[in-house]
Amino acid sequence: MSELKSKFLEVYSVLKSELLNDPSFEFTDESHQWVERMLDYNVPGGKLNRGLSVIESYKLLKEGKELSDDEVFLACALGWCIEWLQAYFLVLDDIMDSSHTRRGRPCWFRLPKVGMIAVNDGLILRNQIFRILKKHFRGKPYYVDLLDLFNEVEFQTASGQMIDLITTLQGEKDLSKYSLSIHRRIVQYKTAYYSFYLPVACALLMAGENLDSYTDVKNVLVEMGTYFQVQDDFLDCFGDPEVIGKVGTDIEDFKCSWLVVKALERANGDQKKLLYENYGKSDQACVAKVKELYKTLDIQGAFEEYETESYEKIIKQNEAHPSKAVQAVLKSFLAKIYRRQK
Amino acid sequence: MSELKSKFLEVYSVLKSELLNDPSFEFTDESHQWVERMLDYNVPGGKLNRGLSVIESYKLLKEGKELSDDEVFLACALGWCIEWLQAYFLVLDDIMDSSHTRRGRPCWFRLPKVGMIAVNDGLILRNQIFRILKKHFRGKPYYVDLLDLFNEVEFQTASGQMIDLITTLQGEKDLSKYSLSIHRRIVQYKTAYYSFYLPVACALLMAGENLDSYTDVKNVLVEMGTYFQVQDDFLDCFGDPEVIGKVGTDIEDFKCSWLVVKALERANGDQKKLLYENYGKSDQACVAKVKELYKTLDIQGAFEEYETESYEKIIKQNEAHPSKAVQAVLKSFLAKIYRRQK
Repeated sequence: MSELKSKFLEVYSVLKSELLNDPSFEFTDESHQWVERMLDYNVPGGKLNRGLSVIESYKLLKEGKELSDDEVFLACALGWCIEWLQAYFLVLDDIMDSSHTRRGRPCWFRLPKVGMIAVNDGLILRNQIFRILKKHFRGKPYYVDLLDLFNEVEFQTASGQMIDLITTLQGEKDLSKYSLSIHRRIVQYKTAYYSFYLPVACALLMAGENLDSYTDVKNVLVEMGTYFQVQDDFLDCFGDPEVIGKVGTDIEDFKCSWLVVKALERANGDQKKLLYENYGKSDQACVAKVKELYKTLDIQGAFEEYETESYEKIIKQNEAHPSKAVQAVLKSFLAKIYRRQK
Repeated sequence: MSELKSKFLEVYSVLKSELLNDPSFEFTDESHQWVERMLDYNVPGGKLNRGLSVIESYKLLKEGKELSDDEVFLACALGWCIEWLQAYFLVLDDIMDSSHTRRGRPCWFRLPKVGMIAVNDGLILRNQIFRILKKHFRGKPYYVDLLDLFNEVEFQTASGQMIDLITTLQGEKDLSKYSLSIHRRIVQYKTAYYSFYLPVACALLMAGENLDSYTDVKNVLVEMGTYFQVQDDFLDCFGDPEVIGKVGTDIEDFKCSWLVVKALERANGDQKKLLYENYGKSDQACVAKVKELYKTLDIQGAFEEYETESYEKIIKQNEAHPSKAVQAVLKSFLAKIYRRQK
C-alpha cells in the first residue's frame, strides 16, 4: 500500500472517532455501535480514488512545495467527505436498484436487521459530511464555498439519478425513450460531477482559488466523468464480477446503458425487436439473448472506438489549459481510469 | 383562510416555479412533470404550522414594525424550507415504517410507479432546500449561519430517528429497553429541534441575532417539542384517523411510544406479561389487547396529567426570558399545540 493511502486511511480513523465522540449528540450504547459498524461497512472498502485524488490534486497544485501536516490532514478530510458522499449514494442507490452485492459483499440493506433502516443510515452518512466540514473548515475563508460546492454537487447527482430512475420506470419499459442524449445527461449529473469535478474543486478551494474561474476545468472533468460512466456501463455487462466487486444488473433493470443505446443505433428491424422483447427482464435467458446480440453487433468494438476517441479529445482539452499544475492534475486523473478493468 | 396563510401559499408557487426553471439543471419533460407532481403531493398539504411560525415569529420579533414585501417573502421562504425539510423526512420515514397513509392519502411511495424512487425524491426535496437558500440568502450576512443551522438540525433529526429505529429493531423486540429516558432522547432529537427550534432560529437569524446567545430559548422550545411528541404518541393510538390524517401504527411497529413507557411504569406483573406478548404485533387482536390495557391503566389520565404539568413548566420557562418579543414568540407556539386534536 502506498504511503499516501496509508496516511489517508489513518485520517479515516480520526474522523470516525470524532464523529462517534461528538459531544453535541448523546449516543445510546446501541446506536454508538450501530454507527461504528455502519461506517466501517460502507465508507472505506472501495478503491478510494475519489478521496485520494483530493490530496493528490492538491499536491500537484502546490507544484512540489512541501505540505504541512495540517494541509495533508485537511486535504485527506475533504477526500473522506467525498468518500462519505459516495457511501451515502451507494447505500441508497442499492436499495432503489434492489441490488444484491456491492464491493464484493452483500449490500448494507440486505444484511439481516438492517433492511430499511439503511435509508436513515444514508442520511446519517450525508449529515456526517457537514459535521466534518464544520469541525475542520469553519474558520477557513472558503468554508461557505465548500458548503455550496457539496450541496451543488449533491443536487446534481440526485437530479441525474432522478432522470435515470424515471427513464427506467417500472411497467412502462419503452426503449424508444433511450438515446445517447439522455444517456449523456444522466451520466453527466449522476456521476461526473461528484466523481471528477468535486475532488479537484476541493483541492482548488484549499489552494485559495475561485471556482468561477475554472469552468473550463469543470467541463473537461465532466467529459472524463462521462467516459468513466460509459466504462462502468461496459463493465456491468462484460466485466468479471469477481474483479469489479458487484454483479451487474443493468440489463435486468432496464437501465439507460451506453451499451443498449449503441445497440439501438446499430440494430436492424429484427434485432431491435429482439431487444424490445428481451431487455429489462429478470429472466436470465432473456439477459443472455441481449448479451448475445451485443456480441453480434460488436458493441465491444464500438466501446473500444469510443474509448480511444474520448481519450484523445480529453488529452486535447487538458493541454489547452494554461496552468501546468492544473494540467498535471487532469493528466493524473485520466491515467487512473483509461482502460480500467474495475 | 387567513391572509398570512394565503400569502404563504403564494410563496410556495414562486419557489416551486423557480426550482422547476432552474437554469443549472436540464430537466427532461418527464422529470420536470415528475418533480412538479412530487412537490405538490408532498410539500404543501400539511397544517403548515412549522412554516407559518417563521413569519409569525419574525413579526413578533419585529414588535409590530411594518415589514417590507422582501422581508415577508424571505421569512415565508425560510418557512417553506422547513416544510420542505418536513416533506423530506416524512417521505422517507413512511418508507422506513411501512406506513400506508399520510395526511389522509396514500404515502407517496405507495403510489403505483413511485415505490423506491421515493427514496431519491426525498433527497431531491432535501437538496431543493439548499437551492432556495442559495438563491435568496447567499448575499445575507447570516447565510453561512443558515446553512449551519439547517445542517445541524437535520443531523439531530436523523440521529433521533436512528435511535428510534434501532430501539425498535425487528426480531429483537425487547420491551425492557424502553424507558422515559430513551423516549425523551428520541423525541428531543427526532422532533423537537426541527419542529420548534428551527422556525424560531430562522426568525432570529433574519432579525440579525446571534444564535449562541439564545440557548435558553432553544431549551424551552425543545421542551415544547417534547410535549408535542408525547401528544403525537397519544393521538397515534387514541386520535381519530379521519381527524389526524393518518392511521396510527405505533403499537404494531413496536415504537418507543410515551404510552407504552407509561404503561410499563404502571403495570403489574400480569399486565407487563400481556404487553410483552402483544406489543409489536401486526395482528389486530393483539393491538386491541394493548389498547384495552392502556384503558385499564388509565394512560389517558396519565397523559392529561403530563399535559398539564408540562404546560405549566413551559409557561414558567417562557416568562423567565428577558425579551418581551421572544416571550410573545414562545407563547404563540404554545397556544397552537396545547390540547390539539390533530
